[in-house]
Amino acid sequence: MQSGKPSLHTCLSPALLHLYDLQGCLVVIIDVLRATSTIATALHNGATAVMPVATVHRCIELGKALGGITAGERDGKVAEGLTYGNSPLEYPESFIGGRLLVLTTTNGTKLLHMALDSGAEEIITGAFVNLSAVCRYVQEQHRPVVLGCAAWKDRMNMEDTLFAGAVIDRIFEHFHINCDASHFARNLYRLAAPDLFQFMHENQASHYQRLMGYGLEKDIRYCLTPDQTDVLPIYRGEQLVRG
Amino acid sequence: MQSGKPSLHTCLSPALLHLYDLQGCLVVIIDVLRATSTIATALHNGATAVMPVATVHRCIELGKALGGITAGERDGKVAEGLTYGNSPLEYPESFIGGRLLVLTTTNGTKLLHMALDSGAEEIITGAFVNLSAVCRYVQEQHRPVVLGCAAWKDRMNMEDTLFAGAVIDRIFEHFHINCDASHFARNLYRLAAPDLFQFMHENQASHYQRLMGYGLEKDIRYCLTPDQTDVLPIYRGEQLVRG
Repeated sequence: MQSGKPSLHTCLSPALLHLYDLQGCLVVIIDVLRATSTIATALHNGATAVMPVATVHRCIELGKALGGITAGERDGKVAEGLTYGNSPLEYPESFIGGRLLVLTTTNGTKLLHMALDSGAEEIITGAFVNLSAVCRYVQEQHRPVVLGCAAWKDRMNMEDTLFAGAVIDRIFEHFHINCDASHFARNLYRLAAPDLFQFMHENQASHYQRLMGYGLEKDIRYCLTPDQTDVLPIYRGEQLVRG
Repeated sequence: MQSGKPSLHTCLSPALLHLYDLQGCLVVIIDVLRATSTIATALHNGATAVMPVATVHRCIELGKALGGITAGERDGKVAEGLTYGNSPLEYPESFIGGRLLVLTTTNGTKLLHMALDSGAEEIITGAFVNLSAVCRYVQEQHRPVVLGCAAWKDRMNMEDTLFAGAVIDRIFEHFHINCDASHFARNLYRLAAPDLFQFMHENQASHYQRLMGYGLEKDIRYCLTPDQTDVLPIYRGEQLVRG
C-alpha cells in the first residue's frame, strides 16, 4: 500500500498465479475469447446466473439437477453431451432470458477456481464487452487487484493481455503498480487500441487464428468491441450473477 | 516445422519453461540485468570461461578447487564469502584476462540448469551487449529456438522481454512463430528501441528501479547498449566459453 494506493498486478498465465498473494484481493478473471465475453453477454440478456464448471461431466450433471442450459466447446465444437457452444452470439435475450447457463470452459474456469482456492476476497469477470463496468468497479473497491489472464493452456495470449492493458490504461493513477507485466500490457494495449482486430490479425495471435479457422470472425469482432453492456459479473455462491 | 522454417518461442518466466518442448532446441538464456551482460563482457575481455553456479556455497567451493574468481551478489551487495559482484564493469581485460570466473546468480543460473534438465540441445546466453552475435548464431543453426527469459523470481521482467523482442525483430522471417509472447515481445521492443533506458525509466521497470536504488545507473546504461562485443557464450562442459 505504498503511497496510500492499493497495488495492482497482472498475472499473464494461471501457471504464474502462485506468485501473487491473493488474500484480500479483488481478482478479475479474463478470458476474452470467449468465456468472459459470453458470461457478460448472457447476464446482460437476462440469464439468472452463469455457473462456470470445469468438466463436461459436471456441466451435464448440474444442468440436469438445476434445469440449466448446458454449454461448452472442446476443439471448436459443442462438446458431446452438451447443447450449446461458447459463442456470445448464441445467447440473445429471447433465448437466455430467465434461464440459468451452466458453462464449461477450460482456461477461464480453471483460473477462477485457482483464485478461489488461493484465498481471493472477491472475483469478477471481465472482457472488452463490459470494459467500463469492470474499470468502474475495480477503481471503487480501494483494495489490491490482480488481473488474471486465463491464457491458453498456460501460455500467455494476446487478447487477455490486451484487455488487462485496457483496464490498466484507464485506472492506473489509482493504483501502485510495481509489476512489469502490467506496464507491458498497458503499452501493448495502447499500440493495439486504434484497431484491436487488425492488431490481432497482423500479430498472428494464436487464438485469433484458431477461431478464424473455425469461421468465427463475427465472434472475434464482437468480443473485441468495448462496452456493449454495463453488466458486472460477480462470483457469489458458485455462480456468476449481475453485480 | 511448418512452411519448412524452424519454430521460435519466447518463454517469459522459468515457471513457464515446462510448457515448451526443448528436445533438439537451441535455448538462449537471457538475464540482461546483469548476469548475461556480465558473462559476455568477461569472455570478451579474455576470461577463459564463466562457470555459472546456483549457490554461494558452490561458488566458493569451485573457486577454491579451480582457482577461479568468485563473484555474485545477493540483494545488491557482494555475497558473503565471495570476492566480486555482478557488474560487467568490474571485469576489464586487465583483471579478468586469462582467468576463470565462477559466477553465482539466482534467476539466470536457475533457468540454465532447468533448460539442461529439460533436454535442450544447446545453450547460449544473450544480452544487448552481444545482440548481433546472438542473432547471427540463432539464425544460422536452422533448428527450433526458445528464447528463455530469466525474469525476476519467476515474474516476467521488462529488460529480458525487450531483449527477446530485439532478437525476434531481427530474425523473425527465418522462423515460424506461433507464440503470442514472441509477437508481444517484438512489439514492445519496437516501442522501446528508440531509447531503451528512457523506456525502462518511464515504465517503472521493477529491476531498473531496484538497480537505480543501488546507484547502478552506469551498469544499466551499459547493459542496454547493443553490440559492445561479438562474443557468443556457449555452454560446454558446465561452463560458458567463447563460441
